[in-house]
Amino acid sequence: MIAKSLPNLFTIGNLFLGIIAIISVFNNKPELAAIMVIVAMLLDGLDGRVARALNAQSEFGKELDSLSDVISFGVAPAFIMYVVAFTELNAAAAWIVTAIFPICGALRLARFNVVAGTPGYFIGLPIPAAGGVLCTLALFHQELNTIVLALSTLLLSYLMISTVKYPNFKKIGIPKAAIWITPVVVIAAVVLAIQFPGTLSKMIFVPLLLYALYGLKKNVDRVFFFLRRKRKKAVDEPESKTTAI
Amino acid sequence: MIAKSLPNLFTIGNLFLGIIAIISVFNNKPELAAIMVIVAMLLDGLDGRVARALNAQSEFGKELDSLSDVISFGVAPAFIMYVVAFTELNAAAAWIVTAIFPICGALRLARFNVVAGTPGYFIGLPIPAAGGVLCTLALFHQELNTIVLALSTLLLSYLMISTVKYPNFKKIGIPKAAIWITPVVVIAAVVLAIQFPGTLSKMIFVPLLLYALYGLKKNVDRVFFFLRRKRKKAVDEPESKTTAI
Repeated sequence: MIAKSLPNLFTIGNLFLGIIAIISVFNNKPELAAIMVIVAMLLDGLDGRVARALNAQSEFGKELDSLSDVISFGVAPAFIMYVVAFTELNAAAAWIVTAIFPICGALRLARFNVVAGTPGYFIGLPIPAAGGVLCTLALFHQELNTIVLALSTLLLSYLMISTVKYPNFKKIGIPKAAIWITPVVVIAAVVLAIQFPGTLSKMIFVPLLLYALYGLKKNVDRVFFFLRRKRKKAVDEPESKTTAI
Repeated sequence: MIAKSLPNLFTIGNLFLGIIAIISVFNNKPELAAIMVIVAMLLDGLDGRVARALNAQSEFGKELDSLSDVISFGVAPAFIMYVVAFTELNAAAAWIVTAIFPICGALRLARFNVVAGTPGYFIGLPIPAAGGVLCTLALFHQELNTIVLALSTLLLSYLMISTVKYPNFKKIGIPKAAIWITPVVVIAAVVLAIQFPGTLSKMIFVPLLLYALYGLKKNVDRVFFFLRRKRKKAVDEPESKTTAI
């Protein structure tokens, strides 16, 4: 019974941290909120793996996971960004940019739940990665221009609903014998996060940003590929016309 | 194409209002936030009906609907209540009561998406009704004790995950010819909500509260039924023992 519920407990933990992150932003602690989102990412990475290791996957667990993700990695990071940066913008613009991020996240999650996936890949940037980049990016708000932060939010929103293939690391599982260590890992992460808040958030930022940019590069490559093909066609066509004459 | 997308546009509108409600709470406008949640309820009531009238139901739309509901009727009302009332409580208690509401909402939505329903009934209080009661109840925070508000939040959370049958009014559909009037209805509701904010919120509160209490009454009836049966058994048993002697 406990084994069957364990993955859902991780998911509920993820959701709980998402709510606490929103409350922390309200209480003027955006750094603490970013840490909550990062710990929620760890829990989100564990729930599916624990479920697979214990053979406790369920349709219910999958639905609960999406509902938690849209809060912890959609609403919470967008709200962090709103408070630390977008309040400087015009109110309507700030509302729209803040809302677009969780809206694209929800569209991404809804698509993920109904479209059959490609093994080994995610279609579009997964919302935990997008949310992770957004909330850690918010920590650099003093060094970055608000417009850059707003454009980054829109770019991450676009990458979520794009059709870019992102590698998924779901296959890196947890051996069944190691399942009972996972709560210890979570507690250690929480302690570490509270002890070294800034360092941890910034350490997480780099790999997540590289992962998100990977998709951007792929998209740019695709645009160049089409442009090259179009130019090649344009060069070939006059030639064929000349030949025809 | 537009006809097929119309229900999802209503759902996205619902989600957008949920985010704006959270932002409004942050900007110290909980009354405005409650109105956003009420208008979101209207959009939520329309999306499914419009989809059925246009024969545009989809698995994608259903998933998107749940993801929007957990934000607009789970996170936003809980956050309104946190800000207007629970900040007076001990921090840990406030966090827990605030988080329990959207957690129960997510459990309710996940169950709804995977368990086959009973025609004409919902199992457990639907999250839009629970969220509607919570955010309008928050408007009475000056007249009510914080403990009463916290207990009401816990009670509404419980009613969502309970197995009480609530009547559903899905059958009250919209004739196809009237679909194009729905955006006008939404705009009229928004204008009305902005013109008479307090009155509208309090008007919505009464029928929603009665709907929620209906389930509570059914639960109390059930407890009394079991108690009566137990007492009857207890009275019967000594008699049968006497007979046996």
